[in-house]
Amino acid sequence: MIDAAAIEGARSRLPATLRRTPVTPGPKVAGYDLHCKWENLQLTGAYKARAAFSVLASLSQEEKDSGVALTSSGNFARALATAGRQLGVETTLVMMEKTAPYKVEQTRAAGGQVVFCENRYEARYEKLAELAEKGLYPIDHRTHPGVVCGHGTVGLELSEQFPEVGTVVVPVSTGGLLAGVAVAVKSALPQTRVIGVQPSGSRAWIESWSAGDLRSVEVDTVCDALTASVPGQLPFQLARHWVDEIVEVEEGTVVEAVRRFVLDSKMVVEPGAAVGLAAALEQKLPRDGPLCLVVSGGNISLSRLAQLLDVAVT
Amino acid sequence: MIDAAAIEGARSRLPATLRRTPVTPGPKVAGYDLHCKWENLQLTGAYKARAAFSVLASLSQEEKDSGVALTSSGNFARALATAGRQLGVETTLVMMEKTAPYKVEQTRAAGGQVVFCENRYEARYEKLAELAEKGLYPIDHRTHPGVVCGHGTVGLELSEQFPEVGTVVVPVSTGGLLAGVAVAVKSALPQTRVIGVQPSGSRAWIESWSAGDLRSVEVDTVCDALTASVPGQLPFQLARHWVDEIVEVEEGTVVEAVRRFVLDSKMVVEPGAAVGLAAALEQKLPRDGPLCLVVSGGNISLSRLAQLLDVAVT
Repeated sequence: MIDAAAIEGARSRLPATLRRTPVTPGPKVAGYDLHCKWENLQLTGAYKARAAFSVLASLSQEEKDSGVALTSSGNFARALATAGRQLGVETTLVMMEKTAPYKVEQTRAAGGQVVFCENRYEARYEKLAELAEKGLYPIDHRTHPGVVCGHGTVGLELSEQFPEVGTVVVPVSTGGLLAGVAVAVKSALPQTRVIGVQPSGSRAWIESWSAGDLRSVEVDTVCDALTASVPGQLPFQLARHWVDEIVEVEEGTVVEAVRRFVLDSKMVVEPGAAVGLAAALEQKLPRDGPLCLVVSGGNISLSRLAQLLDVAVT
Repeated sequence: MIDAAAIEGARSRLPATLRRTPVTPGPKVAGYDLHCKWENLQLTGAYKARAAFSVLASLSQEEKDSGVALTSSGNFARALATAGRQLGVETTLVMMEKTAPYKVEQTRAAGGQVVFCENRYEARYEKLAELAEKGLYPIDHRTHPGVVCGHGTVGLELSEQFPEVGTVVVPVSTGGLLAGVAVAVKSALPQTRVIGVQPSGSRAWIESWSAGDLRSVEVDTVCDALTASVPGQLPFQLARHWVDEIVEVEEGTVVEAVRRFVLDSKMVVEPGAAVGLAAALEQKLPRDGPLCLVVSGGNISLSRLAQLLDVAVT
């Protein structure tokens, strides 16, 4: 059962080192009163640290001793490795061969063991199943309730920090963050709208939302943290009940949003975390009441950021 | 008289829109327990907004009606123009012809009138004197007590937010921030050390500090906010009494510090505001007790930041 109490329970398992990230006014965009929940300032540079710690802390000693496995495009891998080292749990991370080398390095530096798989979304889960057969405890973020509850602690904090919020805007890939935030926010603030955003190069939720069922898509996006080719079953099922809308934004607007965060907010935000601001720039968000953008992470390499910022390149 | 009460007075004149910027843990550097006071998150992107608002608010109606003039390398100009527009005071900003165009544009966009002078430090003050003769109220930040008190509100907040701080580290150009912070911090926390930092391309305080008197130098630095060729008289006089040490860092370390802020803290910091972290990277700061770096601003153009971040360039 995923409800406010379960998310409260996940929060109770977070260590003191995990940060209650601030909510402050965001960039100025005509027509909107934007605020941001800055999860780029979270431990490990992304919200994934929340689920990483709360899920590991919820395991039995036997499960901990067997070690855990996860597949991730990068942020979750680094976060789980960090949590595992701190809690004394061995972590194995399945990553596609094409994963950016700096993400692999960061995961290893945090103490995780990296196992590669083919450059195919489903290959990640086939490898995860292999590891589970070998006795590792698998964390499948498409179906694991603890992941949704851990991510939901973002929404729990947000609803306490900014109760006057009219609309909460969340980046979407597998959808665990969206689902967790929606359950937490709407339980506390039933009048508040929750909207998910995807970039035009990663439309699994857009397609699935209008079809009313899971649809699979090809993914080619600047947002390297938003690469799920199909929504997670559990997040999708929850979202049908709790989420108001899914919005699509152009890839180019996402890059512009990354720049705006640097210029206006002095914040480093990765592309996947800037889709909410992109939706505001495209005037696709509601105008009634203040909005809060969940800025989900800031993990981007220096060279990639330089490339996105260099106006001469575009 | 510049003391804690005068700085408290300056704070009482700040508008509600001015931000009490956060103090949070900073980047990890071996041997140090670093915290940062994030003035890059301040209104206008730099601490200068503090003195801009508190000085304008302290003027008589007659002085306000005459309009005010200031010379600035950029951040103070933008801040004063912003404050002037909000408080209904006309502002004229003297800038050198070589000033980066985006700084001129930002100042104009904020409502300030820009007047250019020769590319010579003293020419700025000659032009300021001309404007004063024409009846404008001149704010000379080398000698104006209100400027030091306004900047000192950074130290007042810091001492309340982080009373366990052992050493406070401050970037230095004219020195108003250093002097104001030193008076505020040492009045509240007499055991705390206050250290100023200059980059090797801008050594006016280094030279003057060891000479015991004002010395003038040639300036050529990556830190475009730290370009004073001579210390301000008033800040220097105050610093002799209140400041413990002036430290010099290499230009290249400053660039590395800008990168570290992006990677470790997800923060955009301009080079002049990164000298404190550079001093930590060069292991030139005391090791006893926690340190707080005053991160004074984040105003840097996208193309310049891209250039500094692009590891291939270095």
